[in-house]
Amino acid sequence: MSFILRNTALLRSITSVIVRGFTVIIGKLPLNGSGKMSMMTNVIGLECVVCGRHYPPSDIWTCPNCGQAGILDVRYAATARFTAADLAERPHDLWRYQELLPITATSQLPPLQVGWTPLYQAPRLARELRIKQIWVKDEGRNATASFKDRASVIGVARALASGAKTIACASTGNAASSLAGIAASVGLPAVIFVPEHAPDPKLAQILLFGATVIRVQGNYDQTWELCQEACAHFGWYNRNAAVNPYLIEGKKTAGHEIAEKLGPEIPDWIAVAVGDGCTIAGVWKGLCEMRQLGFIPRLPRLLGVQAEGANAIAAAFFSGKAPTPAPAATMADSIAVGAPRNWRKALRAVSASVGTFICVSDEEILLAMRVLGRQAAIFAEPAGAAALAGLAKASKLGLIGTHEQAIVLVTGNGLKDVKSAMRAADKPFTLPPDLRQLITFFEKSR
Amino acid sequence: MSFILRNTALLRSITSVIVRGFTVIIGKLPLNGSGKMSMMTNVIGLECVVCGRHYPPSDIWTCPNCGQAGILDVRYAATARFTAADLAERPHDLWRYQELLPITATSQLPPLQVGWTPLYQAPRLARELRIKQIWVKDEGRNATASFKDRASVIGVARALASGAKTIACASTGNAASSLAGIAASVGLPAVIFVPEHAPDPKLAQILLFGATVIRVQGNYDQTWELCQEACAHFGWYNRNAAVNPYLIEGKKTAGHEIAEKLGPEIPDWIAVAVGDGCTIAGVWKGLCEMRQLGFIPRLPRLLGVQAEGANAIAAAFFSGKAPTPAPAATMADSIAVGAPRNWRKALRAVSASVGTFICVSDEEILLAMRVLGRQAAIFAEPAGAAALAGLAKASKLGLIGTHEQAIVLVTGNGLKDVKSAMRAADKPFTLPPDLRQLITFFEKSR
Repeated sequence: MSFILRNTALLRSITSVIVRGFTVIIGKLPLNGSGKMSMMTNVIGLECVVCGRHYPPSDIWTCPNCGQAGILDVRYAATARFTAADLAERPHDLWRYQELLPITATSQLPPLQVGWTPLYQAPRLARELRIKQIWVKDEGRNATASFKDRASVIGVARALASGAKTIACASTGNAASSLAGIAASVGLPAVIFVPEHAPDPKLAQILLFGATVIRVQGNYDQTWELCQEACAHFGWYNRNAAVNPYLIEGKKTAGHEIAEKLGPEIPDWIAVAVGDGCTIAGVWKGLCEMRQLGFIPRLPRLLGVQAEGANAIAAAFFSGKAPTPAPAATMADSIAVGAPRNWRKALRAVSASVGTFICVSDEEILLAMRVLGRQAAIFAEPAGAAALAGLAKASKLGLIGTHEQAIVLVTGNGLKDVKSAMRAADKPFTLPPDLRQLITFFEKSR
Repeated sequence: MSFILRNTALLRSITSVIVRGFTVIIGKLPLNGSGKMSMMTNVIGLECVVCGRHYPPSDIWTCPNCGQAGILDVRYAATARFTAADLAERPHDLWRYQELLPITATSQLPPLQVGWTPLYQAPRLARELRIKQIWVKDEGRNATASFKDRASVIGVARALASGAKTIACASTGNAASSLAGIAASVGLPAVIFVPEHAPDPKLAQILLFGATVIRVQGNYDQTWELCQEACAHFGWYNRNAAVNPYLIEGKKTAGHEIAEKLGPEIPDWIAVAVGDGCTIAGVWKGLCEMRQLGFIPRLPRLLGVQAEGANAIAAAFFSGKAPTPAPAATMADSIAVGAPRNWRKALRAVSASVGTFICVSDEEILLAMRVLGRQAAIFAEPAGAAALAGLAKASKLGLIGTHEQAIVLVTGNGLKDVKSAMRAADKPFTLPPDLRQLITFFEKSR
């Protein structure tokens, strides 16, 4: 069943919805002349995170006043809201939070099922970490097996609404494979720019979805720059989260889901791995919105977890100075970011939550992959397990008390990086096909 | 909401308990002396598929009269039923069909979310195949990324109910990684027997879930035999689908879901890749049960798809003779079965459905992987795409008409076999970081 159909079905049961502060009868939604989505969503403006200037909703990317550092934050009308009763009737995916998304009732939405990922209690994990309770949110269960699908569906929906004929991004990782998959689901051509050294296996998923992959003879910065230029020249829609303010709106739905599912049981902490900073800022935004709507009585504290070899935002948090770009060195490729662009949003979120940052080594990440697999049956990619590594360290250091409860956000499936899984796992035992020798083996290993 | 078996004896003394977060009314279940689960489910007996003898429900595996060929079929009480209204209230996973599963209201159920996988309409795929409509059921979205989770959760639930302290199987593939994950979710030790030549990457997922892996210095038959002996000696619960009649009961829930979701829209055909034969037989059983319960007005026809290099069941279907074991040769490892054990159930299902078999080459499977990725945004492992390859061939041969509709069951995620995906995918293009050269490239490639 396509999402459009479901959306229509949903809308049939609702007679009216608040759009931009006035009541409109759904089904007779007035399309404006340009057909631009921004005119019909609940978005009222964009606010620069550097200078604070406000702009009307549009498809401008960064703040004209502050340049590329001027990342924008999407603001909604005060009337944009939903209740628990509204949500009860809706499909189990991220579109259930539609009033607080930059889409309209008539948007063409990608049909792949994204969001509403499992949130498991993990009592054995909690015992091992000596804290009261742990929930694990498994984002590896999304359509292309990572958290990035939440951003990509928003990007693709807005690309379609803006009339773009192609969507592009620069990435070798989850953002790229996610974009390729979500774009394929609606038949929108995708162009992915990757640095020259990107290994073939990383590209297999992207290529299989039919995206055009341009391997750029240069480093990541040159690759990123070429993508920007190409989007400007060809009029392609730009899915780079660093410059597109709407993508974080998809990411925040993980915060919505946590708040909707746990309500008053919302725990003390949420551990999130941090690379560029966009994910933790998104989760926080979602939680804050749900607090305002009354779904949760209080906000949890954020534990931002960075790799020791890619710790620019954590360093900035503790020093109070802007991050210094430096080469990234960690096996957790999804958070191996040397020059994070969304550090301001991340720092603000962690500070506002009275949270903190912690850094973990690759060895600690490998150990966390093992522990997560054994004690919670979640197979995570290194960046996904990094959040647990940070939580474990925070518990050891006494930053998190034994009476406290926490959520671990696992951002990607371990199948995306089998090589690291092999480093984290035990080795098999080799035996002849003989029952007596097997018996002896198990007697000895007791 | 009553999750309970319609057994009046059980309903005499009502009490309420919390199962998986839901308050359900259950009877005060009469525990028999042995505490065996079989006394409390809706299962009334086991029927041998060879000689037709009936046995009382128990944890016997194959028919004592027919030996290992005597695979058993689980039979339920005529009173075991659910209605659409019952289902409307239930969680979105395979346990919603509990009355027709070999579990009880008090069974400890593995917490990982299994089943209720997406069923997408794929209009572009249908146009490419020149048939009226195609739905794709993406089983790669299960907890460990394959269809096998449906069987493993039943195996683990029954192992726990029988008091087993360990569960085991012989496999290198999806059954093994699935068992390892589902067992880890409840802290049940798992022992996996693999043939000596099993490659490390295939084992990474299994090992990461903490299973003990025994690499047997021998071929697959010796590995399988050692697993049987070990289960008998140590009292381990045996998850080998070839001898454990309960596992197919999990697989049939894919049929339940298709019927529940599509109802009167149930299409003309369902294409399913066939290795051992257990999956297609399971899907058929689920559909038949739903037909009996009135969820669908008629049954679809089964298209059994085998690899040309592992076509024992298809050959038996067309020759009318029992399959001849032969070495299997196909890249689609999940259906590379030379000596299928469940061929009787598979043949019966396809015949009863007035369906047929079709065989596809590895090249056709690779092409299907590409088409599925591009036209339906599903990244499938080779066995998963084989079903589509068969459907495409059947359409070309005129076995399926342009006015007909079909479902394709995709049994596993493409991330499980990135090497094959690389064979199926296009190559990236290499360019310098220069916009003008990029423009020239796109002008030429038009």
